[in-house]
Amino acid sequence: MAESFPMNGGDGTYSYAKNSHYQREATNVAKEMINEVIAEKLDVQSLIASSSNSFCIADLGCSVGPNTFFAMQNILEVVDKKYVTQGATSESLEFQVFFSDHASNDFNTLFASLPPSRKYFAAGVPGSFYGRLFPRSSLHLVHSSHALQWLSKVPEELLDKTSPAWNKGKINYTSSSDEVANAYAAQFQKDMKIFLNARAEEIVVGGMLVLIMAGLPDGIHRSKFPLGVFYDSLCSSLMDMVDAGLINESQVDSFNLPVYAATPKEITEVIKDIGCFSIERMEVADPRSKLGSSVNVPSLIMHFRAGLEDIFTKHFGCEVIDELFERTFLKEAEISSALESSYKKGNQLIVALKRE
Amino acid sequence: MAESFPMNGGDGTYSYAKNSHYQREATNVAKEMINEVIAEKLDVQSLIASSSNSFCIADLGCSVGPNTFFAMQNILEVVDKKYVTQGATSESLEFQVFFSDHASNDFNTLFASLPPSRKYFAAGVPGSFYGRLFPRSSLHLVHSSHALQWLSKVPEELLDKTSPAWNKGKINYTSSSDEVANAYAAQFQKDMKIFLNARAEEIVVGGMLVLIMAGLPDGIHRSKFPLGVFYDSLCSSLMDMVDAGLINESQVDSFNLPVYAATPKEITEVIKDIGCFSIERMEVADPRSKLGSSVNVPSLIMHFRAGLEDIFTKHFGCEVIDELFERTFLKEAEISSALESSYKKGNQLIVALKRE
Repeated sequence: MAESFPMNGGDGTYSYAKNSHYQREATNVAKEMINEVIAEKLDVQSLIASSSNSFCIADLGCSVGPNTFFAMQNILEVVDKKYVTQGATSESLEFQVFFSDHASNDFNTLFASLPPSRKYFAAGVPGSFYGRLFPRSSLHLVHSSHALQWLSKVPEELLDKTSPAWNKGKINYTSSSDEVANAYAAQFQKDMKIFLNARAEEIVVGGMLVLIMAGLPDGIHRSKFPLGVFYDSLCSSLMDMVDAGLINESQVDSFNLPVYAATPKEITEVIKDIGCFSIERMEVADPRSKLGSSVNVPSLIMHFRAGLEDIFTKHFGCEVIDELFERTFLKEAEISSALESSYKKGNQLIVALKRE
Repeated sequence: MAESFPMNGGDGTYSYAKNSHYQREATNVAKEMINEVIAEKLDVQSLIASSSNSFCIADLGCSVGPNTFFAMQNILEVVDKKYVTQGATSESLEFQVFFSDHASNDFNTLFASLPPSRKYFAAGVPGSFYGRLFPRSSLHLVHSSHALQWLSKVPEELLDKTSPAWNKGKINYTSSSDEVANAYAAQFQKDMKIFLNARAEEIVVGGMLVLIMAGLPDGIHRSKFPLGVFYDSLCSSLMDMVDAGLINESQVDSFNLPVYAATPKEITEVIKDIGCFSIERMEVADPRSKLGSSVNVPSLIMHFRAGLEDIFTKHFGCEVIDELFERTFLKEAEISSALESSYKKGNQLIVALKRE
């Protein structure tokens, strides 16, 4: 079973609901591409002919909102528009939207915050997307944003002291050895294969799969990945806490973030290997372009906290979390400077596939 | 929008999860009838022909489990057996089960306690069943147990001091005037019509709707309804608390439980009025026969607390709840004696309908 590290629930200061607007900006960048690809490539009318004029969408790794609501609303509008363009009959299209995430996701908050004016039937689906979640051929469009960079687990070699991939003193692969990076890459390939095989069963022929995730263009070295700067900074705070006697060094050695930024080449390989999907679009986009010229580092750290608090807490205990993030806040200048030398042009992979 | 009074969440002493075995016993009584009617009347093979061999079930008013899991597992097994009997092809049937209840239901607990060995894809659907919850023709079998006795709201006349249906000093209709009882009956008819119209849209032709709810046989006076004894006892505790100056009399006057026990005749009328369903089975069963000869009154009071705490809390405030139920526990002898003269043979309506 895939490990689960839900985003922070509720709607408090450190909640994902309050700290996810960067992910939303990224979704906005993807929006234009999604709209085009649906308008051009999705044959809504023939898709729904066998489903009583209802169109089923799933958002995998939806977290608690509100980003998932914006994304689903957008897709719904574009699909409906395409349907009308195709000369729809008098009977209107009905939509069912499945919000899916790990069972430990805060579905109560998600359900309580569903837009009251929504024009779809909402459902929540608990479970890991590294496995089947829906009956065969039951979905017309599947969307996943900022979720697939989460691996199903940390590659095992990283925790093996006798392995050349032992990741001592690091918590991610971006500034680690090639052995560590290769172990992450292999895990990504394995997970992506499981993901795509499951979706190939669930999506009807002619349906689409749209993926938005952390990524890097082909040929850019992993050390240039901008989020790596934050992981390194959190790692450096942890090492400072080791020096201060607050945690043990072995705790840091045995901790790794199961997060990976793939390249178009890596994803293309898995897709071709599976063979059930055609690649309609693939690009590496830059969400930051919509966020103004400079990055707000403290705000980004809050975003990291909303997304990563759970995984840090499970390993290090809840008593060190405030300390960890407070120490990282103090590294703002260092982070800003390191970001200057990271790859700035694009770190969001957007992929649109069609089930053949 | 229908009012929502969820069962107690979590799994503590007063939780519905720990205090719902009477409802489970009732489900067991219904089980036999459900099994027969599916075996005899449901054409599984032709139903799923247009849905890629997947069979969709919904449980409306599922609460947090575990009863819903037992009921769904049973239906799944009987449908699968029928499918095999019909000479199923090599491709196996896939099941999707929709667990539905108000958005305020504790879906987090429900999802966390899903049986790990389940052979179905699970989804949660938030919302009132007094309205549409699913796309048209998307369900093959809909089940609802111990939920439809909850009206969408208290009939308005009951709160109107100038109305002959003003329910002064009472919290239910079973020992009230005919005017009050008629107001409840009218609300039930209205609600049931909305419920059945929504289900008629959602259930495919040939699909089934199985309802289990509190009920009374035709011709038995409402004052004989055994649950009425408990409502009267809770009401009497409230009036004692008025005398003790703990709450105001006007608070009791303005409080009514939106719970109704219908007769087969009443339900038949609505079904015939709607016209989309054939009645395959209808009976008034007695769950108590499976519970041994004598009723355990304190245990039943705990069940009432798990089911009713929320609605009492919303009206009277949480500070009086312990007092209310402690006072009611002291009335055990009185309750037992009143139950002796109530109608003992059956208070569970079980109805199986087929979408025509």
